[in-house]
Amino acid sequence: MFDNRYGTGQSTLDGLIRATNVLLAGKTLVVCGYGWCGRGLASRAAGHGAHVVVTEVDPVRALEAAMDGYRVMTLAEAAPQADFIVTVTGDINVIDRHHFELMKDGCIVANSGHFNDEINLAALDDMASGVSRPRPYVEAYRLRDGRTVNVLAQGRLVNLAAAEGHPAAVMDMSFANQALCAEYVARHHAELVPRVYDVPADIDAAIAALKLSSMGIGIDVLSEEQRRYLASWESGTS
Amino acid sequence: MFDNRYGTGQSTLDGLIRATNVLLAGKTLVVCGYGWCGRGLASRAAGHGAHVVVTEVDPVRALEAAMDGYRVMTLAEAAPQADFIVTVTGDINVIDRHHFELMKDGCIVANSGHFNDEINLAALDDMASGVSRPRPYVEAYRLRDGRTVNVLAQGRLVNLAAAEGHPAAVMDMSFANQALCAEYVARHHAELVPRVYDVPADIDAAIAALKLSSMGIGIDVLSEEQRRYLASWESGTS
Amino acid sequence: MFDNRYGTGQSTLDGLIRATNVLLAGKTLVVCGYGWCGRGLASRAAGHGAHVVVTEVDPVRALEAAMDGYRVMTLAEAAPQADFIVTVTGDINVIDRHHFELMKDGCIVANSGHFNDEINLAALDDMASGVSRPRPYVEAYRLRDGRTVNVLAQGRLVNLAAAEGHPAAVMDMSFANQALCAEYVARHHAELVPRVYDVPADIDAAIAALKLSSMGIGIDVLSEEQRRYLASWESGTS
Amino acid sequence: MFDNRYGTGQSTLDGLIRATNVLLAGKTLVVCGYGWCGRGLASRAAGHGAHVVVTEVDPVRALEAAMDGYRVMTLAEAAPQADFIVTVTGDINVIDRHHFELMKDGCIVANSGHFNDEINLAALDDMASGVSRPRPYVEAYRLRDGRTVNVLAQGRLVNLAAAEGHPAAVMDMSFANQALCAEYVARHHAELVPRVYDVPADIDAAIAALKLSSMGIGIDVLSEEQRRYLASWESGTS
Repeated sequence: MFDNRYGTGQSTLDGLIRATNVLLAGKTLVVCGYGWCGRGLASRAAGHGAHVVVTEVDPVRALEAAMDGYRVMTLAEAAPQADFIVTVTGDINVIDRHHFELMKDGCIVANSGHFNDEINLAALDDMASGVSRPRPYVEAYRLRDGRTVNVLAQGRLVNLAAAEGHPAAVMDMSFANQALCAEYVARHHAELVPRVYDVPADIDAAIAALKLSSMGIGIDVLSEEQRRYLASWESGTS
Repeated sequence: MFDNRYGTGQSTLDGLIRATNVLLAGKTLVVCGYGWCGRGLASRAAGHGAHVVVTEVDPVRALEAAMDGYRVMTLAEAAPQADFIVTVTGDINVIDRHHFELMKDGCIVANSGHFNDEINLAALDDMASGVSRPRPYVEAYRLRDGRTVNVLAQGRLVNLAAAEGHPAAVMDMSFANQALCAEYVARHHAELVPRVYDVPADIDAAIAALKLSSMGIGIDVLSEEQRRYLASWESGTS
Repeated sequence: MFDNRYGTGQSTLDGLIRATNVLLAGKTLVVCGYGWCGRGLASRAAGHGAHVVVTEVDPVRALEAAMDGYRVMTLAEAAPQADFIVTVTGDINVIDRHHFELMKDGCIVANSGHFNDEINLAALDDMASGVSRPRPYVEAYRLRDGRTVNVLAQGRLVNLAAAEGHPAAVMDMSFANQALCAEYVARHHAELVPRVYDVPADIDAAIAALKLSSMGIGIDVLSEEQRRYLASWESGTS
Repeated sequence: MFDNRYGTGQSTLDGLIRATNVLLAGKTLVVCGYGWCGRGLASRAAGHGAHVVVTEVDPVRALEAAMDGYRVMTLAEAAPQADFIVTVTGDINVIDRHHFELMKDGCIVANSGHFNDEINLAALDDMASGVSRPRPYVEAYRLRDGRTVNVLAQGRLVNLAAAEGHPAAVMDMSFANQALCAEYVARHHAELVPRVYDVPADIDAAIAALKLSSMGIGIDVLSEEQRRYLASWESGTS
């Protein structure tokens, strides 16, 4: 979770900026998907002075985005005003042929989700009369009606392709998590049945505590009285 | 969740400002607890130009607060620099005698958690040589060493006491939720066993969709192809 | 400047919230005018989760607003999507008849500029079939086409009418400024000719230094070497 | 002004991230100097989730920084808690020997001001037992007490050295400004005397209007009535 939320936001913007050297302030940036990656990206882009628009298919997430201060609309509504469209959904063909048809000249599209499925490049290719490469990592598709659509990193993860991926400061937590999970499995395999388990809350807490400590941050500890008070509440509600 | 996250932030600040008429810009405001209420309050206070410090007992939440850009420390470290301390934890004696001893002259403390247990007023009363009321909702405790500690609304919920509580625009969602849950229970009582259930995800989604529609916001809908792609993933991981 | 920038933002929002008890998160708030008052208001409203739109007549200020991350458009474009429209321009009839005609049902308009000239209430009155008062400080104009436009505080300064005006923490600086200016005039009147003078930079610096000191903030002091370096630059450019 | 305010913020962060690939969220970043460059950098760094501390020598700017929500202190106070220190002052030896002595192990220092005078590298070199280069653009000075101080781009402008400098979208305004000023001088040279002139306000307004138009942004125009109202005010105050 931490690498998606905090790592992807910074590294995706980093990829975008390295690939294009475009100023984000004053630009309209559309984030497709408001999961952890999308939240991080939206927040960092707004912090750069971009106008952020969010598209979602889940109404609860869409409402969260609206309450967090972003404009929410369909991608068909967003496409004509977008300077950047970035997909972080994990789904397929999120940017599709009918979206390309609506984009303004010069729009830049990129993907920071799982795979290179999120942008329908086959459709774009079919609409184009030619492709040039004005900068590394930038493919400019010249459409038959004269507009240009720029695709970054051929639709592959722009934060890995054009930048360096997640900073070490975030990945350390992910790797620690995986290592401790492996240890947990080794210790408890007798009790586990074959299904998908969540990471035990204890491991998340232990890693977060280590990370805080490495950042020189101390936090409060519940007193015995406070523990009892909370426990009485929990028992009180059942 | 929506009323805690978005309602409490605004209404707590509203209560603080009405009770004190103090400018938040440039002030240090300490938020005790980084649950949904605390997040909302921290974000709105930062939006008013306050320096926000977060205290927590849970390391994962503490780390989230730090990564969200707030300073995180123990309340004992935060107390000497605080202009405001607001509790939103749901626990008891979060602000205790040894914290009052560390506060600077004029510090303002308030509670926006569950009950009036979060501030140890008995201890403060014991430390004080007198109490005056400079404004409605403000009790100024004169300590024997000459410092003053101001308590808002006698430690009761400052957003209810000194402001008007949650705006209707948020409570409508909470009430809709409760109404639809009651209907759900009425329909499914035969299948339910006596324990605490989460709100069914369908109800949350239905309420969010209604709210978005009332805000004039349309969102995207998964295509059949996208549904299949996501489903194949879900089956692929099990 | 400080009272306009930091005081008006907080006190205008305070007035809006007290008058309406409406949640700002997710709402579209239009700020007419991007001077110091408008900047403060835009920043504080965005900090509450509102979508902020700025209207301006000055292109440099309009561009600043866009680069600061706000949407900029004409008031005629903004009116149909606005939940709130607040004027802070110092001009007359900024919200005029043709804007009222475009507003959506329930729009809330308020003024936080100099006088009660910024909203053309005579035109609105002429368009209305009736006026009711659902809450103190709120006048609901029922238009003949069925829509309602809500006017706060009869177009008078909403931060003075419905809230308490600028917090003391800001006005102290303004009064100190006026007092020190009066002293300056008394001392230098022999040298002054009858025209409008700017506040001498020394007085601004002295007041800011006092304020910082009262906030417990120390700042760096130029070394002799640094002074010489800067002076050599200044002489170098003339 | 626009290139300093909006360009430097993004390009300096870009340089920092490219040089170090360090996650900014949760880090303490000290900005020395709160002119236009410093404001842009502070705002963009806060938007990345960094804790921003500002140091200044001018009390008015220092107070603005505090009211804008940043912590303000002397560099000697800030140095022990800094993960990054970036100078944007235009002065000499802003980071000096006694600051290096206070930094924590691993601190990263960079300059985004005028020249490479802002960091006293001679003093740092004198304190070091060795220098290594763990990444391009990063010089790690090993101090005799065991700590390491990392200097980016040898104290040269980190946004030019490690990134690509200002994006074209900002520099176009600066160059347009210079071109139109040259034209203005050519036309008005008979009336000009040899001194430093400000850019005529008309030119700034013309460039901003062109830029807005290129961004597809329309703004309001004063009506004849509004012009008269404003003019009556201006005459009223003289």
